[in-house]
Amino acid sequence: MQKQILFTNEVAATLDRLVDELKPSKVIALVDSNTATAVYPTLSDSRALKGAHLVVCPAGECNKNLNSLTHIWQSLVEVGADRRSVMVCIGGGMITDIGGFAAATFKRGIPHINIPTNLLGAVDASVGGKTGIDFLGLKNEIGAFKSPVATIVSSRFFATLSPMDMLSGYGEMLKHALLSSTQATAEMMRCDITDIETESLLKMVEKSVRVKEQIVATDPLETGLRKTLNLGHTFGHAFESLAMQKERPVAHGIAVAHGIAAALILSHMLLQFPSETMHQVCRHIKEQYPSPLITCKDYDALIDLMRHDKKNENGKINFTLLKSAGEAVINLSVDESDIRNTLDIFQDLLQ
Amino acid sequence: MQKQILFTNEVAATLDRLVDELKPSKVIALVDSNTATAVYPTLSDSRALKGAHLVVCPAGECNKNLNSLTHIWQSLVEVGADRRSVMVCIGGGMITDIGGFAAATFKRGIPHINIPTNLLGAVDASVGGKTGIDFLGLKNEIGAFKSPVATIVSSRFFATLSPMDMLSGYGEMLKHALLSSTQATAEMMRCDITDIETESLLKMVEKSVRVKEQIVATDPLETGLRKTLNLGHTFGHAFESLAMQKERPVAHGIAVAHGIAAALILSHMLLQFPSETMHQVCRHIKEQYPSPLITCKDYDALIDLMRHDKKNENGKINFTLLKSAGEAVINLSVDESDIRNTLDIFQDLLQ
Repeated sequence: MQKQILFTNEVAATLDRLVDELKPSKVIALVDSNTATAVYPTLSDSRALKGAHLVVCPAGECNKNLNSLTHIWQSLVEVGADRRSVMVCIGGGMITDIGGFAAATFKRGIPHINIPTNLLGAVDASVGGKTGIDFLGLKNEIGAFKSPVATIVSSRFFATLSPMDMLSGYGEMLKHALLSSTQATAEMMRCDITDIETESLLKMVEKSVRVKEQIVATDPLETGLRKTLNLGHTFGHAFESLAMQKERPVAHGIAVAHGIAAALILSHMLLQFPSETMHQVCRHIKEQYPSPLITCKDYDALIDLMRHDKKNENGKINFTLLKSAGEAVINLSVDESDIRNTLDIFQDLLQ
Repeated sequence: MQKQILFTNEVAATLDRLVDELKPSKVIALVDSNTATAVYPTLSDSRALKGAHLVVCPAGECNKNLNSLTHIWQSLVEVGADRRSVMVCIGGGMITDIGGFAAATFKRGIPHINIPTNLLGAVDASVGGKTGIDFLGLKNEIGAFKSPVATIVSSRFFATLSPMDMLSGYGEMLKHALLSSTQATAEMMRCDITDIETESLLKMVEKSVRVKEQIVATDPLETGLRKTLNLGHTFGHAFESLAMQKERPVAHGIAVAHGIAAALILSHMLLQFPSETMHQVCRHIKEQYPSPLITCKDYDALIDLMRHDKKNENGKINFTLLKSAGEAVINLSVDESDIRNTLDIFQDLLQ
């Protein structure tokens, strides 16, 4: 069966059609303890899920670990899954990441289907084939590239999300727009993600995911072009890790939104990214998002975190930046002084 | 760099040349507690290994498990391995299987090089990209397809192997010959694997591995043609597991040799495999190998083990058989009564 991303609010019927095509020996549904009660029952009209074996992981990114992975592998053995069984991962990024990795490695690979249940998962984790777990406190340290046979993206699950969860997903959507064109960026900034009706949202999500899909298709193993998707993530991951260290965690997409602002400032500094667009996007992020809690005292810690990012090699800090919207440059090695200057301007513009 | 299999007795120089081409950020050498003392010191003239971080796993198939895997992952984190680091797996099938899987999954994949140190590993595990660990007592239950960037095959390590270890590797070589042609089979049977000098052995191993390499290249993920490599393995795995249950374990290649004899008997029964060749090969195996310890009382247990083989789906027992040497048929679903008849004849001919 073709790898495909399906945008629909008819989730149960679409899943049943996919499973009918696959003719699996067994269906295993993977959820976390939240989606088990909040989402899974809403899919009760799916024939495929009626006959499925349900595997439940404890919720939360902190459980995207070897313990949960072992639990999933063990459950697959217990229900007698074989190479023709299919795993349906229903949840946020934690579930599609760990479920995809379990599917990638059980009997050297069984098919899986992703059903993201939050906006961030829909536009980011559930598409593109990156799977994995955190290990020794390091994010996605162990994992594999494994594409689902299909991803079913529905906006109906997002109705119950908090504004902060919606903004978290919106951070990645803004990134896709910036990688796409000036027009797409302007259009994205006109949208209020916390106040949009289900069908329009589904259309916007589709447009956004198609950007990622196209980039991933040209470079699935991230040897080159795919690195454009790291826009905002070198700063973003550092912001996210610092917040974690300070025990005031921020959602991934929030840190990414701030990371995008910083990346545009640096892009303007080094690649003459248009000043006007940079200011517009920074203002937009400042208006939409909570203030980033960064002071000059954090610079050393942030630079240290960037240096240890998985994407860096030989201790250099590499960035994906933009010459203009739609025109990315990857593998830019940047001096520490430019990073410090960027963080100064970032504080001025965002706080 | 091209994926390649290099046949040479100049191991250190070949490894250094490979590593020079790869320009890795770090070299990690993986060995088990046996190869650490018996083999690793003999490679001391390798520049690449001089600067390497050494990771040691406890020896033995029983340690091809999640504990050892976690130990390897942890060591990779500790030495600061990144995506441009290379892992050199020096050992038997246990080390190339688990090391390949660690390399497949660390940071979603780093390159690795295999240096098999016994004959079975050279002709089987170290080539073809199957990696993994045993889990809950099930062989290779967790794993991935991941090809090494290179495999260095040298016969100089085999000089110290016991006759039984040589015969274990020879079982897989006989299989490759049977998948190849009548002539290759006759040639293989003329060779006394326990009494052959190093350079001739290297040539024979090269010929044998090329057969596997060619089959794998056409079907790396085992969706079709690669299943021909399962010749002798449905019976073989059952013999191996039964011996384990009886606490009288036999080496994989020994069980496979017996499995080949049984598969040829069944091939003659169902596909008119030539009687003369079947008898020749069975006689050859009887003369070379220890007697299989199978009685009629074992039939039920053996059939049960075959039914649960990873390669089977929906409870059916599937075989790879031969119409003639060089002409394999895959996915043959076989009746239990034919299996029982085969085991009767197997006892007559082999014991």
